[in-house]
Amino acid sequence: MKALIPLADGVEEMEAVIVTDVLRRAGWAVTTASLRLGPVTGSRGVRLLADAVWSDLSPADFEALILPGGARGTQNLMEHAGVLEAVRLFDAGGRRLAAVCAAPLVLQAAGVLRGRRVTCHPAVRDQLREGVWTDAPVVEDGSLITSQGPGTCFAFALALVARSEGAKRAEALAGEMRVLRGM
Amino acid sequence: MKALIPLADGVEEMEAVIVTDVLRRAGWAVTTASLRLGPVTGSRGVRLLADAVWSDLSPADFEALILPGGARGTQNLMEHAGVLEAVRLFDAGGRRLAAVCAAPLVLQAAGVLRGRRVTCHPAVRDQLREGVWTDAPVVEDGSLITSQGPGTCFAFALALVARSEGAKRAEALAGEMRVLRGM
Repeated sequence: MKALIPLADGVEEMEAVIVTDVLRRAGWAVTTASLRLGPVTGSRGVRLLADAVWSDLSPADFEALILPGGARGTQNLMEHAGVLEAVRLFDAGGRRLAAVCAAPLVLQAAGVLRGRRVTCHPAVRDQLREGVWTDAPVVEDGSLITSQGPGTCFAFALALVARSEGAKRAEALAGEMRVLRGM
Repeated sequence: MKALIPLADGVEEMEAVIVTDVLRRAGWAVTTASLRLGPVTGSRGVRLLADAVWSDLSPADFEALILPGGARGTQNLMEHAGVLEAVRLFDAGGRRLAAVCAAPLVLQAAGVLRGRRVTCHPAVRDQLREGVWTDAPVVEDGSLITSQGPGTCFAFALALVARSEGAKRAEALAGEMRVLRGM
């Protein structure tokens, strides 16, 4: 699976790194893309060098689009016309579309949430006016997968793996990473 | 709390980032230090820019030393005389000393594990000839805290928080991050 993960300043760095790392362990070709040139500074000051710059890529070349959260990171994704366009492209094509923490708000901003089962961080639930909010660590609705926060990101990434590589592969990875029971 | 986290090439990037982020959420002053100039490349290709270069710092200025794992990252830490010296300094002074995944092998290489209760990733358990291995996500022995892998890093970081800021602060942080039950 070819996955694209946009990285904006203010991204929750745990969310970005857990998803990237777990999917690479599963054999996915993950490309992180910064919205502008230069290092990306996460919500808690971790600086990441993305694999590419968003403007150099064609989102249509990817099979999955995954949005990490973070309050300011989410705001930056929502204000980026190219990201919103990519969300609509993936939704329309039934490609895998995933968002965690505050980032389901980006899906709403792109107009793809109406009538869909979705979750997000409870702190931003009030801002989610479309979609049917569900209080679960990971919520799947067709090609859409959403999750709640850094602490649910192993489960979130493993749900993506389970969908493509099967539950057994996801369970094996969880064991290898020592993911605790209940995740 | 002032914490120092050395980052070597091959570090398990989830371990480095989860611990840094969770401790900063708890108000700790965390400094990540690369063992050489330039970006650090993690075990799954995530590139991190550390806050400082190890040789510019004095480990004695810190109250906690935390070692992330990763097979090659651990090897690089073990081969660094300054890191081994810092481990002995922290152990001798009863300062907080923590290691996860393969990194407890660095504690062994520094000669501080004899007779201590310790855990590590089961994949490297055979290499752990000193210390009393315990199969638990997080193991505490005096000022020493060890843990098993990326999937135990929330519990590992929260154990560090609980020791300094109390269990209530750690529980509040776990909730805010949506850390799943059992972690």
